[in-house]
Amino acid sequence: MQRAAMLAALALALLLQSALTSALESNTVRAAADEPIWGYQCVKERCERVLVHDAEGRARAVQALSVCKLTCGTSANLWPRPRHLHTSKTLDWVNYSSINVETRGDDGSDYRNHRGGSLLQQASELFREQQMRKATIKDGTPLVKTGGKTLEVTVSLRDPGRHQLTLNTDEGYELFVKIMSDGRINTTIIADNFFGARHALETLNQLIVLDDLEKQLRLPREVTIRDSPAFPYRGVLLDTSRNFVSVDAIKRTLDAMAASKLNTFHWHITDSHSFPFVSQSFPKFHLYGAYTPAEVYTPTEVVDVVAYGRVRGVRVLPELDAPAHVGEGWQWVGDNATVCVKAEPWQKYCVEPPCGQLNPTVDKVYDLLGGLYHDMLSLFKPDMFHMGGDEVNFNCWNNTDSIVEWMVKKNLSGRQEDDFRMVWDHFQKRAYEKLVEANHGHELPVVIWTSGLTAPGKVDRYLDPKKYIIQIWTKGDDPLIKELAEKKYRLIFSNYEALYFDCGFGAWVGEGNNWCSPYIGWQKVYDNDLKKLLRNLGVEPDQTSVLGAEATLWTEQADSHSVDGRLWPRAAAMAERLWSDPVTGWQAAEYRMVSHRERLVKLGVQADSLQPQWCHQNEGYCYLSHNIQGEH
Amino acid sequence: MQRAAMLAALALALLLQSALTSALESNTVRAAADEPIWGYQCVKERCERVLVHDAEGRARAVQALSVCKLTCGTSANLWPRPRHLHTSKTLDWVNYSSINVETRGDDGSDYRNHRGGSLLQQASELFREQQMRKATIKDGTPLVKTGGKTLEVTVSLRDPGRHQLTLNTDEGYELFVKIMSDGRINTTIIADNFFGARHALETLNQLIVLDDLEKQLRLPREVTIRDSPAFPYRGVLLDTSRNFVSVDAIKRTLDAMAASKLNTFHWHITDSHSFPFVSQSFPKFHLYGAYTPAEVYTPTEVVDVVAYGRVRGVRVLPELDAPAHVGEGWQWVGDNATVCVKAEPWQKYCVEPPCGQLNPTVDKVYDLLGGLYHDMLSLFKPDMFHMGGDEVNFNCWNNTDSIVEWMVKKNLSGRQEDDFRMVWDHFQKRAYEKLVEANHGHELPVVIWTSGLTAPGKVDRYLDPKKYIIQIWTKGDDPLIKELAEKKYRLIFSNYEALYFDCGFGAWVGEGNNWCSPYIGWQKVYDNDLKKLLRNLGVEPDQTSVLGAEATLWTEQADSHSVDGRLWPRAAAMAERLWSDPVTGWQAAEYRMVSHRERLVKLGVQADSLQPQWCHQNEGYCYLSHNIQGEH
Repeated sequence: MQRAAMLAALALALLLQSALTSALESNTVRAAADEPIWGYQCVKERCERVLVHDAEGRARAVQALSVCKLTCGTSANLWPRPRHLHTSKTLDWVNYSSINVETRGDDGSDYRNHRGGSLLQQASELFREQQMRKATIKDGTPLVKTGGKTLEVTVSLRDPGRHQLTLNTDEGYELFVKIMSDGRINTTIIADNFFGARHALETLNQLIVLDDLEKQLRLPREVTIRDSPAFPYRGVLLDTSRNFVSVDAIKRTLDAMAASKLNTFHWHITDSHSFPFVSQSFPKFHLYGAYTPAEVYTPTEVVDVVAYGRVRGVRVLPELDAPAHVGEGWQWVGDNATVCVKAEPWQKYCVEPPCGQLNPTVDKVYDLLGGLYHDMLSLFKPDMFHMGGDEVNFNCWNNTDSIVEWMVKKNLSGRQEDDFRMVWDHFQKRAYEKLVEANHGHELPVVIWTSGLTAPGKVDRYLDPKKYIIQIWTKGDDPLIKELAEKKYRLIFSNYEALYFDCGFGAWVGEGNNWCSPYIGWQKVYDNDLKKLLRNLGVEPDQTSVLGAEATLWTEQADSHSVDGRLWPRAAAMAERLWSDPVTGWQAAEYRMVSHRERLVKLGVQADSLQPQWCHQNEGYCYLSHNIQGEH
Repeated sequence: MQRAAMLAALALALLLQSALTSALESNTVRAAADEPIWGYQCVKERCERVLVHDAEGRARAVQALSVCKLTCGTSANLWPRPRHLHTSKTLDWVNYSSINVETRGDDGSDYRNHRGGSLLQQASELFREQQMRKATIKDGTPLVKTGGKTLEVTVSLRDPGRHQLTLNTDEGYELFVKIMSDGRINTTIIADNFFGARHALETLNQLIVLDDLEKQLRLPREVTIRDSPAFPYRGVLLDTSRNFVSVDAIKRTLDAMAASKLNTFHWHITDSHSFPFVSQSFPKFHLYGAYTPAEVYTPTEVVDVVAYGRVRGVRVLPELDAPAHVGEGWQWVGDNATVCVKAEPWQKYCVEPPCGQLNPTVDKVYDLLGGLYHDMLSLFKPDMFHMGGDEVNFNCWNNTDSIVEWMVKKNLSGRQEDDFRMVWDHFQKRAYEKLVEANHGHELPVVIWTSGLTAPGKVDRYLDPKKYIIQIWTKGDDPLIKELAEKKYRLIFSNYEALYFDCGFGAWVGEGNNWCSPYIGWQKVYDNDLKKLLRNLGVEPDQTSVLGAEATLWTEQADSHSVDGRLWPRAAAMAERLWSDPVTGWQAAEYRMVSHRERLVKLGVQADSLQPQWCHQNEGYCYLSHNIQGEH
C-alpha cells in the first residue's frame, strides 16, 4: 500500500516535470527561432554583432552573419582568395530548385560527348546538390522560403576533351555573374578545360550563402572574377599503412580538398606496417599484409576513389615506397627478398618499428615491383608516380651477408656510405625501368623524397632532373634546397616544420612528445611562403621549378576517426598559400579561415575548431597584439 | 564516325576493366575472409603474431587476437584493472541471444520496485545490447555461429533503493563466473548498490570477447573479481560555452566514461562566450546568450543527459561559473549587473576575450543567480554543485565606479588586493545563500576552483572546509596544495600540466602554440599519481581528503567534432589511475590502453589513435628504451 502510493506519487511527479519542461521548451525555443535577437552590420570591413532592435525598440538594418561575411571587406569570404575579384554588395535571391548548368558552349558543341564534358556534368550535379544541402535540413525540410530567381550557369571550355590533370594543366577560370532582363541570374564560366571550370563552380558555390534572417539563398548580383593558381601542385599526403583509413574518410578528404582547390591526393598506400593495397598481379601481398581482411583497398575501391577525386579536380597520386619502408605483405615471397624485417633493436636498422627493406640484389624483387607498378598504373591511371625512396638504412644492408657478398663482386667493397649509395642507385635504376615498362614504355614524371640519394653534392650522380621531381621533407632552411634548385630539379615542399601534420602529439614509442613537436598551428602553415624560403636561401624564385607543396599526414597516431581533424582546416591554410600566394600573412586571412572551417564542417568534414564560435561572431575581438581600439 | 568509334572503344575498355576488377576482387577478398593467415600465441605474457600454418603447412595452435589479449597475462585485458582478479584461461561460448540478467535478489525482493532496481534493469538492457553489437554487424547480420551457452547473471544488492551517487557511495562489487551442471554459465554480482553493480556489468562486458577465428562470443569459464575504486571522484569536465557541444557528443562522452568507470561529468555549461542553458526562470539568458537559436540545451535535453549519465553510473555535476566568466546572455539585465563585458584591451580585464564579470554590489544579480540555481537544481538534481569562482580580475572591478563607491561605503577603500577579496567574499557568501535557498534550505557540497579566494595564507578566511571542496588547477607541485590539505579541504586535482586536455594545439589569439603547450600524452596522464604529488609536497596522503581528479576539456579549440579525440583515450588513462591507483607506471598498462582505445571506438567514440595498429598486433615491438630481445 505504502509502496503503491510512493510509485503513484513518483509517476505524477515525473509527469508534471515532463509537462512543465516541454511547455517551457516549446515557448522558449520557438521564441528564439522566431525572433532573432542579434544581427550583423559591416563596420570598417568587420562584421559587428548588434541587437536587431535598438534601446528604443526600433528595428536596425542588420544582416545575417553569412551575408555580412560575404559583402563586408574585399574578399567575399572566399577561400582561397581569387587573384582578381569584384563582387557587388547587392545580392539576389537564388531559387535553389531552379539551377541550370549549361555544358554546351558558344560554338554549339555538346561537351557531354567529351570526357571533360562528362566530368563537368557530374561536377554540375555536385554543385546543384550543394545548393540543395544549404537550403534544406537532412530530412529535406527547406530552411528557405519558396521563390527566388532562376540561376543559369553557362560554361565555355577551350579544351573540352581534357579529362586528366597534368603538371601543365591550366586550372585558371573566369567567372561572371549578372542579372538578365528577364530576371534570371546569368553566370558565365570561361576556362581552358574542366579543371578550371570546376574551380569556378566551387567559387560560385562559396558565393551563394544561406541568409537565415531572410530565409533565402543569396548571391552577389554582379561578380567578376579572374583566377588561377600560383603553383600547379597543391597536395595532401595520406598514409594508409601505419593505420588503415576507410574509403569514406578518404572521400571526406577529397571533398575538403575540392572545397579548398587543392589538386593532388598523394596516397602513401603501403609501408612496413601494413599492405592494404589489393594487387591483382600478386594477391598475397594484402592477404599477408593487411591488418585484417576487411582493411584493404580493392581494385573497385581504388577506381572509385580515383574517379571521386577527378570530378573534384583532384589527381590521385599513388606512392609505392621502396626500397625502405617495406615489410608486412612480403612474408610469402621468400628468397631473401626482404631484409631486416622486424629486426631488433629497431634503432639499429630503421627509423621506427618495424624495420624492413628490400634486397636490391634479388631479381624477384624487381619482378614483384613490376607487377605492383602495373596494377597501380592500370587502376590509378596517374599522370605521375611516387617511388618513395626515403630513409634507407645502410646498416641494415651492411648486416645482410648476401648484399655484402654482392657488393664485393661489384667492387663496392669499401662498405662506405657511397658504396651503399651505389647499391641504392642500382635499385632505383632497375625499379625505374620496371615502372616505365609497366607504363608501356612511356616515361612519366617520378617523385622521390629527399634522402640518401639526394645527399649534398651527390644528387645529380643518381637522379636525372628531367626524370625526377624531388619532394623536400627536411626543414625549409636546409641548404640542400638551394643545391636542388640550382641543379634544376622540380621541387615539391613538405618541409616538416610547417607541413607535417602529425607533429605535436604524445610519443608513441616511449613517453613525452613525438619527434617533430610542437603542433603546427594553421598560422605557421599559412605563412610557409615558398618564395620567401627560397629567397632566404639565396635562390631567386623565378629561376626555379617549384611545383608547389604538400601537407603530409603520417598516420602512426591517426586513423579514420581523426584524419579530418588532423588535416583540416590546416591543409586549407596551405591551399590559400599555394593558390593565391598572398603578400599578406595569416592575420589578413583569419576571419576567412574560420569561415572556411565552418564550410568544411557543413560538407561533413570533422575539421578542428580553431577558436571559440564567439570569435567568428565578433570579428576583431580575438587578438593578441594588435590594438583594435577605435577601429570599430 | 571517328568520335563514335572512340567512344565505343572507351566504353568497351571501361566495361572490361570493371569486369576484371570485380572478378579479381571477389576472388581475393573472399579468400582473405575465408582463410586466416595470421593467428596469435601467448608467449611470455605477450601476444605474438604467427602464421596459422607453419613452413610445412601444418596448422598451429593459434588464438584470435581478442582471445589472446583476454587470456595472456594477468589483467584479462580489463580497463581499469580490477584490484583483485582471477580469470581462467579456459573460455566458454556465450550465446548472445540467450542472456538473462536477474534483478531479483536472494531474499526474494523485486528490485524493479526500487529506483535503484529500475536503473539496474536499464543497465542490464544496455549490457545485452553491448553483446548484441559485438556479435553482429550494423544491419544485424551475425558475425558468430549459432549456438553457445546461456548466460545467467544474478545481481544481489545490499541497498537496492540507492539511485543517486554521492561522495560516500560504495562503488565496489564482486563478480563471479562459474559453469553450472546443466551447462549454463552462472554469473553472480554482489554489490552494495546499483552503482557498484553497474561497474560489475561493465567488467563482465569487457570479459566477453568476439573470437573472429571460432566465430563465437567467449568468456572465461571461471572468474573471481573483487573490485572497488581508490578515489570516489573520477571526473571529466566539458566546457560547452567556448564552443557548443551537441547532446550526441555529450552522450558519447558519457558512454566512454561508463566504459572506463569514471563517475562525474562536470558540465561547465556557461561562460563569458555563450549561454546555451535554457533557464526556465529567465528565458532571456539563452535568447541573448546562445550562439544560435539551435545551440541550446533545453530542459528536456538536460533531464535526458542526467538520466543517460545516471544509468551509466555517472553523476552530472553542473557548474555556474561566477562572478567572473560571465558576459553573453546577461545583456538584457541592465542595472549595471555585469561589468567589463567585451572590455578592451582585454588583457587588462580578463584572461581571454571576451571579458565580463558580475557586479557584486547589485542586488538583482543575486536574484538572477537564485533563479538559475533553482533551475539547475531542479533539472540536474545534483548531489553537489560547482560554483566556479575562478579568475576574478580585480582591475575590472577597480575600474567600475559603482563598485569602488560601494567599497568606500563598506570601508574597503584601500583598493588593495585584500579589499577586492572582501568584495569577492561578499559575493560568494550571498551566492552561496542563494544556492542553499534554491535547494530548499539544504546545504550540499560545493566545489570551487583554486583562485584569488584560495590565495596562500588566506583561504580559510573565506571558505569553510566543511562547505567547500577545492578543485586544484595549478601545477601539481604548487605549495598551495599542501596548505589546502593541511587545512582539511577536500580536494579534486585538475593540475593543468597533466589534466588539461586542451593544451598543445595552435594559439587562438596570436600565433605559435597555446598557453599550456605541449600536448599531454596519455603516459603523463597515467603517471599523474595523486599520492606521489602529495608526498613530494611533504603531505602524507592518508592524512588528507583527496576526493580524486578530473580531466578538463576547455573548448576554445574543440567542439562536437573534436571532443571525442581530445578526451579519449586520455581520460581513460586517468580513469585507471583513479580506480586502480597502480604502483606501476604507464609501461605496464600500454597494451591494455591500446586495447581499451579500440573498445571505445567500437562504442562509437572517435577516440584518438595512439599507435600504429601494427603495435596492437605485435605487442612488445613498439618500444623506445627497454630491450625486449630474448624476451620473446
